[in-house]
Amino acid sequence: MRRARFRDAAGSVRTGEWTDDGIEFGGETYDPDEVDVLAPVEPTKIVCVGLNYRDHAEETDSDLPDRPLLFLKPPNTVSGHGDTVTLPAGKDRVDYEAELGVVIGEQCRNVPADEAEEVIAGYTCVNDVSNRDDQRREQNWVRGKAFDNAAPVGPVVADPEHLVDDAGIALRVNGETRQESTIDELVFSVPELVEEITTYLTLEAGDVIATGTTAGVGPLSDGDSVEVEVEGVGVLEHSVAVE
Amino acid sequence: MRRARFRDAAGSVRTGEWTDDGIEFGGETYDPDEVDVLAPVEPTKIVCVGLNYRDHAEETDSDLPDRPLLFLKPPNTVSGHGDTVTLPAGKDRVDYEAELGVVIGEQCRNVPADEAEEVIAGYTCVNDVSNRDDQRREQNWVRGKAFDNAAPVGPVVADPEHLVDDAGIALRVNGETRQESTIDELVFSVPELVEEITTYLTLEAGDVIATGTTAGVGPLSDGDSVEVEVEGVGVLEHSVAVE
Repeated sequence: MRRARFRDAAGSVRTGEWTDDGIEFGGETYDPDEVDVLAPVEPTKIVCVGLNYRDHAEETDSDLPDRPLLFLKPPNTVSGHGDTVTLPAGKDRVDYEAELGVVIGEQCRNVPADEAEEVIAGYTCVNDVSNRDDQRREQNWVRGKAFDNAAPVGPVVADPEHLVDDAGIALRVNGETRQESTIDELVFSVPELVEEITTYLTLEAGDVIATGTTAGVGPLSDGDSVEVEVEGVGVLEHSVAVE
Repeated sequence: MRRARFRDAAGSVRTGEWTDDGIEFGGETYDPDEVDVLAPVEPTKIVCVGLNYRDHAEETDSDLPDRPLLFLKPPNTVSGHGDTVTLPAGKDRVDYEAELGVVIGEQCRNVPADEAEEVIAGYTCVNDVSNRDDQRREQNWVRGKAFDNAAPVGPVVADPEHLVDDAGIALRVNGETRQESTIDELVFSVPELVEEITTYLTLEAGDVIATGTTAGVGPLSDGDSVEVEVEGVGVLEHSVAVE
């Protein structure tokens, strides 16, 4: 099952099944292009991981961290499939970063890696939109990573069985492929991330772990159309406008 | 008015007025020592400010920042008056940091400093509990500052008129004063912080800005009893236990 949230014509928020025919709910099928598709989750926090693909660490001249590099995106960052992401005005460079998102299914703490699958509801696509001008000047990446709608998420939460171990991950800008890898290239695996994060922080149902991006990171411009694809999960689409 | 949230004997969550006699709600007066006082707000995020008192920057051998140093505490960090704050196990040093907390009253973005008071519901006390072992090793202070119950908040939200411009701020450990200053020593003022943060992030009703700590920062130990006092607002009390 792949679950999507959307707002129907009456304004009610529904959770339906995303299929090849559309979003099915209550015996009807809705066209994703004709309803307001929402982010499939309402996280209290997104816990993000930096430098978690070897090739991305190389392209940024960074050493691989000896434990996961963590940072936070608060709820104001969440945006959905089909949204127009506004970028902060007056910045030289705001980048895309395609990531596999892990959706937590229940409140949890101190989860050992070998039990992590018990707390994972499924997987989604995330674009970790990053304002480099400010990120470079900050100790903590707040202006750089936590600005409004800096985390497009969606279009669905896909049940875990839809994600194979070497699933492809890709990002396209205006139809042109810019990032392309497989999730078995992750430095710290999903279970390792769940264990490390829950050693310190309680995760809630609907919280998301954004597992890091691969090589090919680059800038976004006003009017760009972005697709983040995780094989087996779906394709998250959004456009971009400068504020 | 000073508003406190508490759980009554039936388990219902109530918001009452904190007075010298107790917490008044529905014609009854409750003893704060005999009910479960909750954090007075349920923030979607706490936006914290580092190095915002000159004397604290000096004691940490840090230059004053040219703009506010921001970091985030997510909702899992919130704890309340009277709670026992658990510190991560196996750390050499976990510190207290007494801070004035600004409580936001309405959803807002792009608020100029001279209009900041329109979005401020009131003030509270915050202890920005800090795990220095991990903070020193991290780019972003997640293990260091965002661990569970790392943000005792309360006991009340005091209406703005209760806070004078040079209100005292103090922290005591086991009855002994460790921090003592006045809020007119802030490097970036509350209105300046509201403007800077809302340039990037939408704030929600109940969100908190923790405005930074003064000199005298030091370690907490298992069994310590802590008081954070902001003159005119109240005294936030909590104890400490190592996990």
